[in-house]
Amino acid sequence: MAQKTSIPKGTRDFSSAEMARRNYIFDTIKGVFARFGYSQIETPAMENLGTLLGKYGEEGDKLLYRIQNSGEKAALAPEKGLRYDLTVPFARFVVQHRGELSFPFKRFQIQPVWRADRPQKGRYREFYQCDADVIGSRSQLCELELVQMVEQVFAALDIRVLLKINNRKLLTGLAEICGFPERVVDITVAIDKIDKIGLEAVEAEMMEKGLSADAVAVLRPILLAEGDFASKMELMRGLMNGGSASGIVSQEGLRGLDEIDELFGLISAAGVKLPVELDLSLARGLNYYTGAIFEVKALDWQIGSICGGGRYDNLTGIFGLPDVSGVGISFGADRIYDVLCGLEKYPAGLESGAQLLFANMGATEVHSILPLAAALRSEGISTEVYPESGKLKKQFDYAQSKGIAFISINGENEIAAGTINIKNLSSGEQKSFPATDTEAILEYLRG
Amino acid sequence: MAQKTSIPKGTRDFSSAEMARRNYIFDTIKGVFARFGYSQIETPAMENLGTLLGKYGEEGDKLLYRIQNSGEKAALAPEKGLRYDLTVPFARFVVQHRGELSFPFKRFQIQPVWRADRPQKGRYREFYQCDADVIGSRSQLCELELVQMVEQVFAALDIRVLLKINNRKLLTGLAEICGFPERVVDITVAIDKIDKIGLEAVEAEMMEKGLSADAVAVLRPILLAEGDFASKMELMRGLMNGGSASGIVSQEGLRGLDEIDELFGLISAAGVKLPVELDLSLARGLNYYTGAIFEVKALDWQIGSICGGGRYDNLTGIFGLPDVSGVGISFGADRIYDVLCGLEKYPAGLESGAQLLFANMGATEVHSILPLAAALRSEGISTEVYPESGKLKKQFDYAQSKGIAFISINGENEIAAGTINIKNLSSGEQKSFPATDTEAILEYLRG
Repeated sequence: MAQKTSIPKGTRDFSSAEMARRNYIFDTIKGVFARFGYSQIETPAMENLGTLLGKYGEEGDKLLYRIQNSGEKAALAPEKGLRYDLTVPFARFVVQHRGELSFPFKRFQIQPVWRADRPQKGRYREFYQCDADVIGSRSQLCELELVQMVEQVFAALDIRVLLKINNRKLLTGLAEICGFPERVVDITVAIDKIDKIGLEAVEAEMMEKGLSADAVAVLRPILLAEGDFASKMELMRGLMNGGSASGIVSQEGLRGLDEIDELFGLISAAGVKLPVELDLSLARGLNYYTGAIFEVKALDWQIGSICGGGRYDNLTGIFGLPDVSGVGISFGADRIYDVLCGLEKYPAGLESGAQLLFANMGATEVHSILPLAAALRSEGISTEVYPESGKLKKQFDYAQSKGIAFISINGENEIAAGTINIKNLSSGEQKSFPATDTEAILEYLRG
Repeated sequence: MAQKTSIPKGTRDFSSAEMARRNYIFDTIKGVFARFGYSQIETPAMENLGTLLGKYGEEGDKLLYRIQNSGEKAALAPEKGLRYDLTVPFARFVVQHRGELSFPFKRFQIQPVWRADRPQKGRYREFYQCDADVIGSRSQLCELELVQMVEQVFAALDIRVLLKINNRKLLTGLAEICGFPERVVDITVAIDKIDKIGLEAVEAEMMEKGLSADAVAVLRPILLAEGDFASKMELMRGLMNGGSASGIVSQEGLRGLDEIDELFGLISAAGVKLPVELDLSLARGLNYYTGAIFEVKALDWQIGSICGGGRYDNLTGIFGLPDVSGVGISFGADRIYDVLCGLEKYPAGLESGAQLLFANMGATEVHSILPLAAALRSEGISTEVYPESGKLKKQFDYAQSKGIAFISINGENEIAAGTINIKNLSSGEQKSFPATDTEAILEYLRG
């Protein structure tokens, strides 16, 4: 009995058409990474389980795919798991190969990752990540570079986006001046809700979560703040400097403001045209970010963030290399794919097949065109020879379905006359060439 | 305590330099595949275990990596395994998507596969396969196309190779006329040894394995055959036609000879310059090949086969789509990598880094060059800005280690003078440009 054909839930086959679009995205991103001097690395799909465990929180540990050891010495071999993201394997790579790398080390990596998540629309168990990181420098020029790469990738893809920036040190500062240094998450969530539910509801929620009335009062000026970037920064500098209701000074908060100031200064000096916004409610991946935090939203299509990242000060510490700061960004290829589909922004001709199909009019006829087909291919013309002689209708349908531009039909008569017929399948135009005039044929096919 | 950094046995990290070389190989192969109208697909790393089990023999089943189900409903989910090759997932893909494909379907696929094999030199547990297959046509024009692709790939990589061709039907025919139709493998092995150990030893070995003296006598003329392709083909046609000592006629053997004749005729008609040889001892993957068998050997470097393939008549049958013939070829990227290393055939400049590094002479100086760096990048010049101001020596070393071609050092004086200095790191030549003359700088950098 025949076996049922299916693939595991949450995984996907990619057809030729989908691959053409995916490659367009990957190639665009790769091109930008290369233009900024990032070079590609790859790591194995499997890592020793110890490398992965405990790096993604309790929830993450549960979502790791574990691989059964096989063979005789299975019991002795370390357990293995599938890569859950590209960041932890990258940290492991940096530590393991630190002797061979020149720092600051700028790498990019485009590989699939696996998560045993509940599959749902837009969430897969196997998906690609496209990451660029620079490790070994604390300079805000690294952050600038990532901002510029975001600008160039989305300009090349013709997607209008907004880049939101925040800084973990500033969030820490807010929690410190409230007198609740451990409540960074609650405070960030509260700030995030101010536009939706208003001041009273936000303050009620914070009190419910156990913040004191005094703490809430410290945050009030920020929740109410209006005005431009400069005036907000001035307000926060005053608060961090002991000017809040609590009077607490936060050195960490002040450092955060300095970093934001410096980065926005660099962004302006470099002439970045991408819309960039300071967003105090941005807090993705709080557990390992220690400085800048980035997130990119598409302006013309409703979808979650399509790119994100930030600075981490101690990612390699767990593997024995402390005090190496890095900053990175990750592009969400699957969501970018959906945005480009939704906005119909894929360039024309991505999915086109070969340039030319030689129809098959029988064994003798095929023999006579084989050298020409070979010559055209050596000149870079993508060329097919239909393998079966048979109904021309079927051969035309084949050309149509594959998006082939030209068809060449040469029967007995053409061969006797020493000519080659070529038909343009979109215009219907038909031309005849001396079979020996490869130059003229090339010129015609190249348009 | 710091964790030890290591990766699972038999897997590999790829550095930037290695990736540059690997991408060169993959891009070359992809370019050839595309020129013949093959389009790319991808399948998931995991397949349902049922899709994989029983397809690679008993030994293969043992080498499958199985994935543990995780989550609440683990017990209900079908078991999964990692892809063992690209052929079985391709067959599954064709059956599952047959309604959306146009046949003959020509696809290529470049993805890693995993095998729990004992790791040793040149044998890995994770490695890439580069496969091209055409499915849905029995025409020998498909075989020709693969031969032409082999020619173009190795010509482009500048590796001299020999393509060996055999046909499974001919091997079946030999076994049939011996009167031992099930002993194809023993007979093939015997033919393979004739040059090494001589007629007597080969015949003794065959008798040891249980072939009769009569059977051995049938094979003798083939073992002793000399002369060119045509005379060997004539000899075998006579034998298959009842002219052997057994007098048995093998229709299958005759069909094999017809196929070989046709393919060699097409190869000659198409003007293929690749050395091609009929090799009766070639029998790779006997279990699913049913027609042509291919194998490619490097002529100037000692290593196993670097490419192989063949025709299979019933690969999709197990998934419920019988009578679909296909033929495919697989390039061994890892061995090709080793051959190119051994022969030092990688093109120069593969591993070069950015074109230009702006040295960092301090915050003010960096601010002033940021717009120029951005402008150069938009013109496609790969450009880095060193993130840390500090010792120039360190910045030079960085440029050197990354293979950067030019360094631009602009201090207070240059900025005051409105000039940009650019130094060619290999020639030592130094030039100065007006800071506003982006055109002249571009022209110089493009050489």
